[in-house]
Amino acid sequence: MEILKNRILKDAEIVSAQYLKVDTFLNNQIDPSLIEEIASEFTARFSDTSFNKILTIESSGIAPAVMTGLKLGIPVVFAKKNEPSAIIKDAYTEMVHLWTKKCDYKISVPSKFIKKGERILIIDDFLANGSVSHALISITEQGGSRVGGVGIVIEKGFQDGGKILREMGYRVESLVIIENLENKKINFRE
Amino acid sequence: MEILKNRILKDAEIVSAQYLKVDTFLNNQIDPSLIEEIASEFTARFSDTSFNKILTIESSGIAPAVMTGLKLGIPVVFAKKNEPSAIIKDAYTEMVHLWTKKCDYKISVPSKFIKKGERILIIDDFLANGSVSHALISITEQGGSRVGGVGIVIEKGFQDGGKILREMGYRVESLVIIENLENKKINFRE
Repeated sequence: MEILKNRILKDAEIVSAQYLKVDTFLNNQIDPSLIEEIASEFTARFSDTSFNKILTIESSGIAPAVMTGLKLGIPVVFAKKNEPSAIIKDAYTEMVHLWTKKCDYKISVPSKFIKKGERILIIDDFLANGSVSHALISITEQGGSRVGGVGIVIEKGFQDGGKILREMGYRVESLVIIENLENKKINFRE
Repeated sequence: MEILKNRILKDAEIVSAQYLKVDTFLNNQIDPSLIEEIASEFTARFSDTSFNKILTIESSGIAPAVMTGLKLGIPVVFAKKNEPSAIIKDAYTEMVHLWTKKCDYKISVPSKFIKKGERILIIDDFLANGSVSHALISITEQGGSRVGGVGIVIEKGFQDGGKILREMGYRVESLVIIENLENKKINFRE
């Protein structure tokens, strides 16, 4: 997705060889017109499949998920992040390890929002080691739904989350894949 | 806003005389087409003013804020919630007391996103005692911006947040105002 690549090249900040900061247009500050382009691209890529619902996670997944949900005409559910020790009733939960912040948390979705037999589209802003995606897949499957696709805005190709998900048979559509951030340069996978 | 009132009457759950749950269409599960209607209504109500930016708070403010930002052609910034003791660098911060969860947290916005002299539109899903709105106003003003309006999806008219903000001279546009939740019934202010 050229418009996204160009925006990343223009505005993203390489904090380290692992960490690309996109807080001026994708998270923290959001460019709604870019989000709309992202939603159009997800809609086009998944146009061969019908979904009942989008599942994402707070907070940065919400904007692309809701804009995509508008285009697909389906509701969006977001998982909430809770303390690891939180006891959450009537919900599907899963643990996530957040490498960038070196912490664990428990994500949860009220069980009433995951219905048996539905086909779910998972959307998130980043895919790195895949911890969040695996947790969202687990929650989907706990509820008897199945994952029909995983839409990712930016995949870090130098971490193995995307590779593993694809090997497991999940369809992952990443709008851009970053091959590496070596020599303080953003190198995309072609 | 009739469409919103009807949706509240149809799908909201009165948990107590203080607490109305709208998790099936506004937070947790989001109906994107309703959010688009909400954004259109905000756009119409604030059509006489130009804004540089929308400021909201994670997570439930993000969907209406981004959809409104798309229509107004302006970026959206969301404040993050942090532990009260968190030390956050290069950011404007403010404390918020969350009555529904009986806890305090510190909200923060990186200072680079609030620029001197800008006119900010604050958007949030609920207005009750006004604690979040006051914190977002404080952050705006710490950065030398000014608040040109506060757009609220659902105002609880039986709590005094809206009244106080209006008395302070802020323009508050609430799409629906709930007069009370007495006798297990949702009574709107006309």
